[in-house]
Amino acid sequence: MAEPTPSPTPKIIKNDPWYGSYAARAETMRASEIRALFAVASRPEVVSLAGGMPYLDYMPFKEIAELIDKMMVEKGDIAWQYGLAQGDPHLREDVLQIMRLENITDVQPDDVVITNGSQNALDLITRIMCDPGDVVLAEAPNYVGALGVFQSFQVDVVNVLLDKDGLIPESFEEAVIEQRKLGKKVKFLYTVPNFHNPAGVTMSVERRPKILQIAQKYHVLIIEDNPYGLLGFDGQTYPALRSMDDENVVYLSSFSKIIAPGMRIAWMVAPPGIRQKLVLANEASVLCPPNMSQFTITTYLDNFDWRQQINQYRGMYRDRCNAMDAALREYLPYCTWNKPKGGFYIWLKIPQGLDSRAMLPRAVTAKVAYVAGTGFYMNGEGRDHMRLSFCYPTPERIHEGIRRLSTVIDNELETTQLFGTSGVPDADPRDAEHPGPQVQ
Amino acid sequence: MAEPTPSPTPKIIKNDPWYGSYAARAETMRASEIRALFAVASRPEVVSLAGGMPYLDYMPFKEIAELIDKMMVEKGDIAWQYGLAQGDPHLREDVLQIMRLENITDVQPDDVVITNGSQNALDLITRIMCDPGDVVLAEAPNYVGALGVFQSFQVDVVNVLLDKDGLIPESFEEAVIEQRKLGKKVKFLYTVPNFHNPAGVTMSVERRPKILQIAQKYHVLIIEDNPYGLLGFDGQTYPALRSMDDENVVYLSSFSKIIAPGMRIAWMVAPPGIRQKLVLANEASVLCPPNMSQFTITTYLDNFDWRQQINQYRGMYRDRCNAMDAALREYLPYCTWNKPKGGFYIWLKIPQGLDSRAMLPRAVTAKVAYVAGTGFYMNGEGRDHMRLSFCYPTPERIHEGIRRLSTVIDNELETTQLFGTSGVPDADPRDAEHPGPQVQ
Repeated sequence: MAEPTPSPTPKIIKNDPWYGSYAARAETMRASEIRALFAVASRPEVVSLAGGMPYLDYMPFKEIAELIDKMMVEKGDIAWQYGLAQGDPHLREDVLQIMRLENITDVQPDDVVITNGSQNALDLITRIMCDPGDVVLAEAPNYVGALGVFQSFQVDVVNVLLDKDGLIPESFEEAVIEQRKLGKKVKFLYTVPNFHNPAGVTMSVERRPKILQIAQKYHVLIIEDNPYGLLGFDGQTYPALRSMDDENVVYLSSFSKIIAPGMRIAWMVAPPGIRQKLVLANEASVLCPPNMSQFTITTYLDNFDWRQQINQYRGMYRDRCNAMDAALREYLPYCTWNKPKGGFYIWLKIPQGLDSRAMLPRAVTAKVAYVAGTGFYMNGEGRDHMRLSFCYPTPERIHEGIRRLSTVIDNELETTQLFGTSGVPDADPRDAEHPGPQVQ
Repeated sequence: MAEPTPSPTPKIIKNDPWYGSYAARAETMRASEIRALFAVASRPEVVSLAGGMPYLDYMPFKEIAELIDKMMVEKGDIAWQYGLAQGDPHLREDVLQIMRLENITDVQPDDVVITNGSQNALDLITRIMCDPGDVVLAEAPNYVGALGVFQSFQVDVVNVLLDKDGLIPESFEEAVIEQRKLGKKVKFLYTVPNFHNPAGVTMSVERRPKILQIAQKYHVLIIEDNPYGLLGFDGQTYPALRSMDDENVVYLSSFSKIIAPGMRIAWMVAPPGIRQKLVLANEASVLCPPNMSQFTITTYLDNFDWRQQINQYRGMYRDRCNAMDAALREYLPYCTWNKPKGGFYIWLKIPQGLDSRAMLPRAVTAKVAYVAGTGFYMNGEGRDHMRLSFCYPTPERIHEGIRRLSTVIDNELETTQLFGTSGVPDADPRDAEHPGPQVQ
C-alpha cells in the first residue's frame, strides 16, 4: 500500500464557526502530532527512514517522455477526455499479464476495476460493505492507510495476530467466532500477505489454503492487498489467495510500488456481485479514474520491458534491505527484527522500557526519522516497535541513519537505566486512542 | 460538474453469494435502466444529446505533447512520485488567478484543496458534514452526480426551487425553517449558480447577497459548485458567492469543462476548519491527487494562453447553443425552454402528457439520445422534461438530432391524442424512486 508525502501539520483552528456541525465520522479524523515531525523529517540533513516512497531515479524518464509525447499526439483527445467508471479497457487487459505472475490466470478484463490508487480501492470496498459498528478483521500491526479508511467509515477494527509466517489462521478463526458470539457482523478480513507493511513478513504458502478454508467455512470475505508481491528480493513470487479462490477474495494491486505512484493507478478484482457495486461506488466517488494516468501506464507497459524494470527494483531494494540489516547488526544488535524477503520495511522491536513514540522528537533532533509503532495500531499499542523504511535512501544514507538511531536509543537506554523511565511525560493519551490515518 | 462516459449496463448478477452482506448505503446504489440505452446511444449513427463531454478537438495536442515531454525530462521523478494530500503547491497557486476572474481575490494557496475531479470534492464535503438522515438542500432539478453522492451517504435531499433567475431565495429560507421544525439537521445548501446543469439558468446577481444573508442568518453552509462559470457565451462572468462571503461558502471548481476532464483535477476553497478536515478526508480517500495530472495542468497553464483557449470554447459552445435553439424553434416550437447564456445544456419541457423517460427507447431507435428529466430528481419527478446537451456534437449534428427528436415527439403526441396515453406501460416505479447516480 501507498505512502504519500505527509501534509504539513495543520494549524489549530480557533473558533471554527462550523464546530459541532460535522458528521460523526469527521470527529474521529484528526491530525496526529507525529505529522509535526514530518516537516522537520523532510529536511535534507535528516535521514528519513519514515516514508514509503519508491525510489524512481533509475526510471528512463527521457524515453518515457518521448513515448508520452507520441501518445498525446495520437490520442490526446481521448487521454484528456472522461473515461469509463470501471477503467480503461486496454489497461484492464494489461493488468491480466501482471497478475499471471502470481498464478491468477482466470480473470477477464470485465472482472477488473481501475481505481485512484489502492487507497481509493480500500475506500470503495469499505463503503459498499461496512455500516458503522460492523467489524473488519485486520492484521496487527497494520497498514496505517487502511486503518484510516476503516476509521473514517466508523468500523470496529479487530486485531488478528501475525507471526514470522504471516497471518495466523487460528487467530483469524477465533476472531470470527468471538465476534459472532458478540453479535457483531464481520464484514471482511483485510490482509497484506506479501512483504507486509509494516511487519515485513510474508504469509507462508502452507497457510494460504487454511486461511481460505476458514473464510469459506464462515462465509467471510477476504481483502487481499498486494502492492509488494512482485518485489521479492530473489525474484520469488507466491500464489495469490485470489489464485485459489475466485468467490471469497477481493484482490487489490497497484502500480505505485512496482512502477510509480504519481499516476495514482491501482486495480481490483472482485466477484461479479461485488464488482458491480464497486463500479457504481467508483462512479459516485470520482466518476472515473484519470485517462491521462491510465494512458500513461498503458503506454509504459506496452513499450518498456517492465519485467526487467521490476527486476531492477528488486535488486535495488534488496541491496538497501541488506544495508539496513547489516547496520542494525552493527549498531543495534540488542534490538530484534525479522529480515524481510521483499518489500520496503523492517519492523524493529526496541529494548523493553523504551517508547518509540516519545523518542521520536529526539531522533529527529539527531537527524534521523522513523514511524513509531503506535501508528500501525488503533488502540495505542506499538510503543515497543518502530517501522524503518529502506526503500528511498541510498545504502550509505541508511547506514548513517541507523548509526544516528543507535545513538538515540543508547541515550534513551542510559536515561531509562538511571531514572527508570525515559524521562519524558507520556504522549497525550487521546492521541494514542486515535492515531489517525495521518501517521504515515 | 462532470459527465463521464457511462459504463456499460451491468448484467444482472444471479445468486450473488454476498447478497445480504452489503452496507445499507450500497443497497440504494443501483444501475439505472437508462444505462442500457447509453451503449446504444454511443453508436456513431446516433446523435447523442445526452452526454456532458467537452469538445476537445481544437486543443493543440501536438504543442501540449512537446511541453509534457519537456516537463517529464525535467521533473519526471516528482511527477511520478507521491504528492501532498492537499495538492501540489504550484497548482494551488495557479488556481488563484482563475478564481480572480470571478472576483475571488482573498484566497491563499493554503486555503485550496486539490481533488480528483469535483465529484470527489462533493464526496469529501458530504463525508465530513453529513450523517445518515441529515438534510442537504439542493436545487431541483439537480446535477445527477451530486444526487448520487448524497444518496451514497444516505442523506435526505430536500428540493429548493429554481426559476429563470436561479435558486429562489424564499424557497431556500422556507426549506430551512421547515426542516428545522421537523427536527432535521440541515447540513448545507448545494447550488450550481452559473449555467446550471441541467436547468441552464444562472442565479441573478441581485439574488446572490440575499442567499448569503439567509445562509448567515440560519448558519447554513453553502456549497457553491462552479464548473461552468467561465463559459458564459458573451464572456460575461458573475461574482462568485465565495467572493462575498469567506466564512459560509465552500467553493468548488474544476478544469474538466474549461480545459479538459482527462486529468480529473478540480479544486475546493473552504474556511479553515472545514478545509483542515477536507485535507484529512482527501488523504483517507485517495492519499493524494495524481502528481502526473497536476503537473500536466500546471505545465499547460504556465505555457499556454488559457484565457484565449477558454474564449475559444465560449465561442464554440455559443454557436452550438444557437444551433440547438434554432433547431428547437424550427422543429419543436410547441416545447418550452430557456435559452441559456452559457454552459452545456438546454432543459426542455415537453408537451403535457408525454413522458421523457418512457419515450427514450423510441428516441434511441430514431437515432437520437437525451437524458430524461427523472435523472435529475430523487423523487421520480421530471418526466415532463429532458436535458439536451449541445457541448459535444457539431452544429450540423445538433440540427439533425433535434429534427429526429421532433419526429419522435410528434409520434408520441399523435399516439397520446389517439389513445389518451403514449401507449406504453409506465416504467418500474422502483426505478423512479432511485434513479441513482448512473443516469449521466
